[in-house]
Amino acid sequence: MPPVKRVTITDIARLAGVSPGAVSFALNGRPGVSEQTRQRILAIAEEHDWLPSSTARALTGARAGVIGFAVNRPARTLGAEAFFTDLIAGIQSALAAQRIALQTVLVSSVEDEVATYRRWRSARQVDGVIVIDPRDDDPRLPTLHELGLPAVVIGSVASRASDPAALWIDDRQVARTVFGHLAGLGHRSIAYVAGPGEFQHTRLRAEELTALADRGVTGEVIPTDSSPAAASAALHRLLDAAEPPTAVVFDNDVMAIAGLRTAQECGVPVPLHLSLSSFDDSVVAALVHPSITCATRDTFRLGADAAAFLLAQIDSPEVLPDRAAAVPQLTVRDSTAAPSPR
Amino acid sequence: MPPVKRVTITDIARLAGVSPGAVSFALNGRPGVSEQTRQRILAIAEEHDWLPSSTARALTGARAGVIGFAVNRPARTLGAEAFFTDLIAGIQSALAAQRIALQTVLVSSVEDEVATYRRWRSARQVDGVIVIDPRDDDPRLPTLHELGLPAVVIGSVASRASDPAALWIDDRQVARTVFGHLAGLGHRSIAYVAGPGEFQHTRLRAEELTALADRGVTGEVIPTDSSPAAASAALHRLLDAAEPPTAVVFDNDVMAIAGLRTAQECGVPVPLHLSLSSFDDSVVAALVHPSITCATRDTFRLGADAAAFLLAQIDSPEVLPDRAAAVPQLTVRDSTAAPSPR
Repeated sequence: MPPVKRVTITDIARLAGVSPGAVSFALNGRPGVSEQTRQRILAIAEEHDWLPSSTARALTGARAGVIGFAVNRPARTLGAEAFFTDLIAGIQSALAAQRIALQTVLVSSVEDEVATYRRWRSARQVDGVIVIDPRDDDPRLPTLHELGLPAVVIGSVASRASDPAALWIDDRQVARTVFGHLAGLGHRSIAYVAGPGEFQHTRLRAEELTALADRGVTGEVIPTDSSPAAASAALHRLLDAAEPPTAVVFDNDVMAIAGLRTAQECGVPVPLHLSLSSFDDSVVAALVHPSITCATRDTFRLGADAAAFLLAQIDSPEVLPDRAAAVPQLTVRDSTAAPSPR
Repeated sequence: MPPVKRVTITDIARLAGVSPGAVSFALNGRPGVSEQTRQRILAIAEEHDWLPSSTARALTGARAGVIGFAVNRPARTLGAEAFFTDLIAGIQSALAAQRIALQTVLVSSVEDEVATYRRWRSARQVDGVIVIDPRDDDPRLPTLHELGLPAVVIGSVASRASDPAALWIDDRQVARTVFGHLAGLGHRSIAYVAGPGEFQHTRLRAEELTALADRGVTGEVIPTDSSPAAASAALHRLLDAAEPPTAVVFDNDVMAIAGLRTAQECGVPVPLHLSLSSFDDSVVAALVHPSITCATRDTFRLGADAAAFLLAQIDSPEVLPDRAAAVPQLTVRDSTAAPSPR
C-alpha cells in the first residue's frame, strides 16, 4: 500500500498564502490572525481533511482519544453472552458523540490484563480503562493506582480507599430479589448454578442464598465456567439427586436456556415441577417457551454510564466518588411458579 | 490524575552509564554496542517498562498496532445478534498473539463510516480496516482505495478491480442449500423474512429463492430491519394470508426464535404445519424447542481469517487476491419437516 499523504500545517500555509505560524494560531483558536484569515485557513484545512497528528498530540501531552477495555473471557464463548455486546454497545454509544474510540483486547488471565494496562499506559495508547469482574485481592486495582491510569471499575460493592472509582450494582440486593421471589412462591430447596467462584458477584449471590436458611430454605451452589454445557451438566446432576431442588437459578441467560432444554429432555415440566430463573436477561430469554424469569438489567445503559463516568474521571485530577448503578429489577415470566409435588 | 511518568531513552542511558545513542542502538538491535552492554541496557529498559512511544512510532512512520472496525448497526440491538460478538472475538483472537489491538466504533450511516475512515487514516490511528455488509454501488470501497487504507471486505461476491480485497462467502450457494432443503422436503410455498434490502447478501438470497420457480416453488420476500419484533410481525402477516407459506426462512437466529414463538402463540405447530429455518446459527438456536435448522457458519473463524488476511494486506504493497471463506453448511434440526396439510 502506498504511504498515506497527510496535509501538513506547511501545506495549508502555502495554500492560504500565510505563514505556518499563522495556520497554527488559526487552528488552535488563538489570537494573532484576522477573523477573515482564520476562516480561510479553516476552510482549507477542512477541505484537505487536516487533523492534528497523533505525533503532535503525543508531543503536546494531549489525549489519545481512545479508551481501553480488556475482556478476560475465552474468545470462542464470548458471542454466546449478550452481556458483553450490550455493554460494549453502550460504552460506544457514550463515546461516539465525542468521537472517542474504544479499543478492546482479549486477555487470557488477570496477569495478562495487568500487562496490557502497563503497555497501554507506557505507550499512551489509551486515556483510561473500564474494568469488570473485580475479585477479592484483585491485582489489577493496585496496578491501575500505581500507573495513575484513569479507570472505572464495574463491580458489586463500593471501592476501597486506594482503588479506582466504582460504578457498582448492588448484587446482594439483586440476589435477595431473585432468591426471595422463589422463596416467596414456597420453594424450600433452591440451587444456584453459578459462574466461576472467584468473581465477587458470584460470591455475594451465593451468600444471599445461604442466608435464606433463616427462612427454612436449603441452598446449594454449583460453580461452573458459565458455559451452557456446564449448566446442562449441573442440572442433570441436580435432577438425579434423591431429593432434587424445586427451583434453580442460573448465572446467565444462555445457561438458563440450556437448563430449560435439559429439563424438557428429562421430561421435567417447567414450571410445574421445576422453576427456572436467570441473573441475566436477554431478548431470547423472553422468546423461549416458557419464557424465563430474569433479573433484568439495562446492560446497554450500564456501559454508557461507565463510559461517561470514565470520561469524567479522565478529566478529574482526583479519584471521583463511587456511583451506584441502577439495580436490576425482577421480570417475572412463565418459568417460575409455586412448587408442586411430583 | 497525575501525568504518567515514562522512562525515556535518556533515563536509561543515565542508569546504564552510556550515551543515549548507545541505548538507541541497543533497543533497535543495531550494531555499535557490545553484547554485554546491550544486555545491560535491555535489562534496565525492561525493568522500567520502557516501550517506544507512539510519538516515536509516528515520527518514524511505524505502525499504530491497531486495526479498525466500524459497526453500522443500532447500538441498542447489537447485543441480540451473536454474529457481531463472534466476529469480533474471532478478529481479536488473530490479533492477540501479535499484540495488535482492535478499535471498534459505532457508526450511524455509510456516510458516517466513510468519514470515520478518513479520520482514522488522516490521524494514522489504524493500520487497516475490516469492512462488512457491502452494498451495490458502495461508497466505502472507492474511499478506501483513494485513501490507500489497507482493507479487507467480508462480502458475498468476489471484489471488482478497483476495490479492496474480499474475503467472500458464497451466499448464493448457502441460499441454494437452505431453500433447496425445504424444496426437497416438498415445500412449494416458501417465505424469506429478510434483512434490509440494500445488503448484497439479502439480494442474492432473495434471487435464489425466486430462481426456485423452476421447481414450482412460489417464493415471497419480506425485507425487515432484522429485529425480532419485525420478524414476529412478518410471520403474523404470512400466517394471516389466505394461503400461508408452509416454510419460512429468517435472516438470523434471533428472528427465527421470535418467529418460533409467534407460531407457538398462534397455535401453529412447528414443524408439523410450518417449517422454520435461519441463515445464522447460534448456541441458542440449538437449545430452543424445537431446535432450529440453520446454515451454520463458523463466524469466529471468519473473523480470525479476516484479521489474518488484513495483516497480510497491511504488509503487502499490492492489493492481494480475494480469498474464499468456508461455505456455511446446513445443520438440519427439529424445526423443518415435510409439509403436512392443515
